[in-house]
Amino acid sequence: MPVTVLRMGHRPQRDKRVTTHCALVARAFGAEGIIYSGVKDPKFEETIHKVVGSWGGPFFVRYEKSWRKAIREFKGKKAHLTMYGLPFEEVHIPKGNLLVIVGAEKVPGEVYSLADYNIAIGSQPHSEIAALAVFLYHISGVKEEFDGARLRITPSIRGKKVNIP
Amino acid sequence: MPVTVLRMGHRPQRDKRVTTHCALVARAFGAEGIIYSGVKDPKFEETIHKVVGSWGGPFFVRYEKSWRKAIREFKGKKAHLTMYGLPFEEVHIPKGNLLVIVGAEKVPGEVYSLADYNIAIGSQPHSEIAALAVFLYHISGVKEEFDGARLRITPSIRGKKVNIP
Repeated sequence: MPVTVLRMGHRPQRDKRVTTHCALVARAFGAEGIIYSGVKDPKFEETIHKVVGSWGGPFFVRYEKSWRKAIREFKGKKAHLTMYGLPFEEVHIPKGNLLVIVGAEKVPGEVYSLADYNIAIGSQPHSEIAALAVFLYHISGVKEEFDGARLRITPSIRGKKVNIP
Repeated sequence: MPVTVLRMGHRPQRDKRVTTHCALVARAFGAEGIIYSGVKDPKFEETIHKVVGSWGGPFFVRYEKSWRKAIREFKGKKAHLTMYGLPFEEVHIPKGNLLVIVGAEKVPGEVYSLADYNIAIGSQPHSEIAALAVFLYHISGVKEEFDGARLRITPSIRGKKVNIP
């Protein structure tokens, strides 16, 4: 189903790698794109555009100053990933557009009520990257085909095989 | 099955958060502990010990200067997670002790031959944290029970419920 990820509260200095990992995970597990709020970060956007240029797409990155606006204006269901939520294997999410929300360290209480679902990937502290990956894998699986890829890997028992298709 | 994670090439400044996420993911998805190589990082170890103190265990953190030694001396099968490997859903891993190896940016070629399995969680660039999470979820699922937890979450539709058991 068509999934967009919203990464909240990005701080370029501190979160560069974590937000980059979130975006790459979103792409690898079939999301259409990522919206991020917090502080605008052209370097992060460039990193993702470069990956899409080499490995294919489509995949968009969009900055939205207001996470509230991004959530409210999204046309579809909204699932907020949080360790406090309901176990993801027990939540039924109907087919249709889905916004998957992942926060940074402190998520405003309002997000819990704006979301249609508050979903936990285990009720233990771990990682928003991990939560996003397991959740997207659960609902969409691994994405295999990308358009316009300049690089493609041939899976192998040992070593690295990269092809130019 | 009994799983240990090996995180290679840790650099305290650059990798603090990523390695911490790897360790927390290892714990949340049932690994017995994490061995890390690269540069010793007492702060990282302390962070994990604090989580174990609050949320329970058992879960160990151990520094091993030589990743080669850690791999060679491990008694059991070794699975190296890499985007170049074989699709994880197609690899059969027998029951028994398992070392799951995740690298930092540049993994020495030798690791590919020391490992019994080179396994890909999708053949796209994304995140060692994500790869570890999806792989551990695939082989072990989410761990629900921890010994000695001072904090425990009650899953809820909205809001945060933390209990002191």
